[in-house]
Amino acid sequence: MKKLKRSARLVEMTQYLLMRPHTLISLTAFADRYQSAKSSISEDLAIIKEVFEEEGLGELHTLAGAAGGVKYMPKMDKNEAKTIIERVCHQLEQPERVLPGGYLYLTDLLGQPGLLADVGRMFATAFAGRDIDVIMTVETKGIPLAYATASCMNLPVVIVRRDNKVTEGSAVSINYVSGSTKRIQTMSLARRALKEQSRVLIIDDFMKAGGTVQGMMDLLFEFNAKVAGVGVFVESGELGTEERLLEDYVSLAKLTSVDLRTKQMTIVPGNFFD
Amino acid sequence: MKKLKRSARLVEMTQYLLMRPHTLISLTAFADRYQSAKSSISEDLAIIKEVFEEEGLGELHTLAGAAGGVKYMPKMDKNEAKTIIERVCHQLEQPERVLPGGYLYLTDLLGQPGLLADVGRMFATAFAGRDIDVIMTVETKGIPLAYATASCMNLPVVIVRRDNKVTEGSAVSINYVSGSTKRIQTMSLARRALKEQSRVLIIDDFMKAGGTVQGMMDLLFEFNAKVAGVGVFVESGELGTEERLLEDYVSLAKLTSVDLRTKQMTIVPGNFFD
Repeated sequence: MKKLKRSARLVEMTQYLLMRPHTLISLTAFADRYQSAKSSISEDLAIIKEVFEEEGLGELHTLAGAAGGVKYMPKMDKNEAKTIIERVCHQLEQPERVLPGGYLYLTDLLGQPGLLADVGRMFATAFAGRDIDVIMTVETKGIPLAYATASCMNLPVVIVRRDNKVTEGSAVSINYVSGSTKRIQTMSLARRALKEQSRVLIIDDFMKAGGTVQGMMDLLFEFNAKVAGVGVFVESGELGTEERLLEDYVSLAKLTSVDLRTKQMTIVPGNFFD
Repeated sequence: MKKLKRSARLVEMTQYLLMRPHTLISLTAFADRYQSAKSSISEDLAIIKEVFEEEGLGELHTLAGAAGGVKYMPKMDKNEAKTIIERVCHQLEQPERVLPGGYLYLTDLLGQPGLLADVGRMFATAFAGRDIDVIMTVETKGIPLAYATASCMNLPVVIVRRDNKVTEGSAVSINYVSGSTKRIQTMSLARRALKEQSRVLIIDDFMKAGGTVQGMMDLLFEFNAKVAGVGVFVESGELGTEERLLEDYVSLAKLTSVDLRTKQMTIVPGNFFD
C-alpha cells in the first residue's frame, strides 16, 4: 500500500487490528505494510493501546522478540457490561415474554446484531484466560451467541444438530434427557466437525436444569474432546441447586422467579457479575 | 470522556464508527464526545473517509444540515471479494466435500468467523442500494451468513424454523416442496417475529432449485411482507434454467458441474461478479 501520513496510518492500523482479533501481527508486517520504521509503528501502537484500554475495548498485547508482535483481545469493561445486562433484564421482564412451560421469548433480542456483539465481548471477557480451540452450540437460538463470541475470540464454531442432516456426512448421535421436561431427545454432530482432544467452549442461550449442556458434554466425550468452559445467556434459577446437573458455568442473566398465572418475572444479572 | 489529543481521537473515532455501521452519528454528538470543535471533527472524518475508501472498507456518508452527521456503510472492493471467493471455490472443489444427493459439505467454512465477516461485507455491498428492514434465513446453515450480513447492515435477523418450537409462541406454518427432492416439507415463523409490510432480505447458504427460498417467499406473503432481495452463498447451477423456481438473486459462488462417481466438481464465482 502507498505510504500514509501518520494520521491516516493510525486510522488504518486501528481498523486493521479491530478486524483481526486474537491474531498476532508482527511489527515487521506493519512496518512493511506502511513503509515505516518499526519505532514509528511502536509509537502508533502505544497510542492505540492507550485508547483501547481507556475505553474498555480490550487489550493490546505486545510480545517482544523475534517472534514478537501485537495482538488485540476484545473485552468489555464489567461496569459497562452490567449496565447493558440490566437494561436487557428489564426488557426480559415484560409479561408477554412468558411462554408455556416457564420458557422465555428471547428470539427478538437474539436477532439484534448490536446486542449480540456486546454479549460476544462479555463471553470473550469471561473466558479470556482459558485455552480454547473451538466454540460449540446446539441449534437454533444458541447459534448467533456462539458466532458473536467466536468473532471476538477468532475461533471456529461447530453446531450440534437436533437431527442428522444429509448435508453433514457421517455423524455421531447421542440421546440425552432434558433435565426440566424429563424427555429423551437426540443430538448429533458430524464426524468431521471436531478433532480429537479439542478444548471446547460451550455457549447456549437458555439453561434450565442443564440437560442440553450436559448432552453436549456427553457428545464431547464421544469425540475425546474436553470442556474448556460453559457460557449461557440466561439461566433459570428457579430449580434448587440439587436439581441442577451442572455447576461450573458463566451466566449473564438469571431468571429468579416466574409466576405463570400473573406472568410476573424477576430477572437479575447472572453469575458473571458476582 | 476526557479530552483526547488528535492522534488518540482519530483512533477512538475509527473504532466508534466501525462498531456502529449504518448508524447516523451527528457531528454534534462527536463534538460533545470529544470536547472538540465541529471543524476539527470534520477534518478528522475527512481523513477517516479517505482511508476507508482507499482501503475498500466501505463508504463514510456525510449528511449536511441540522439533521446531518456521518454514517459508515461497510462494503468490500469487488476485486478483493473475487480473490477471496476464488480461494473459497478452490477449497470447495476438494472431492471429500461431495455428499450424497449432490450436496456440498460447507459446514466448516460457515464456522470460520473471518470468512463470514468477509461474506457479510460482500452481501452488504450487493444489497447496499436497497431499502431493507430485516434479514431472514432458515435454520441451520444460513444463520451465520444472515448474522454476518446483518452486522454490516445494522439490521435485525429473523430465523424461520423447520418445526414449531415451544419457545417461539404462536407461529405461522406453511408447506413447501423442495425443488430438487420434490418432497413436501414444513417451515414456520413466530407471529411476533415479523411486522406487516416489512421489506425482507433473504439469505441462505445453498440453493439448488430454489424451493426453500420460494418457501420463505410464500411465508412472507402470509405476513404481508415483501422480498427486498435474495442472496445465496453457493448456488448449484446444474439444473436447466427452466427448472429453477427463482430468477432474481445474488450468488457468490456457483457449482457448475459435479460427477458423483469421481467426486469431481467445478465451482466458479457466482453472479455477483458478472
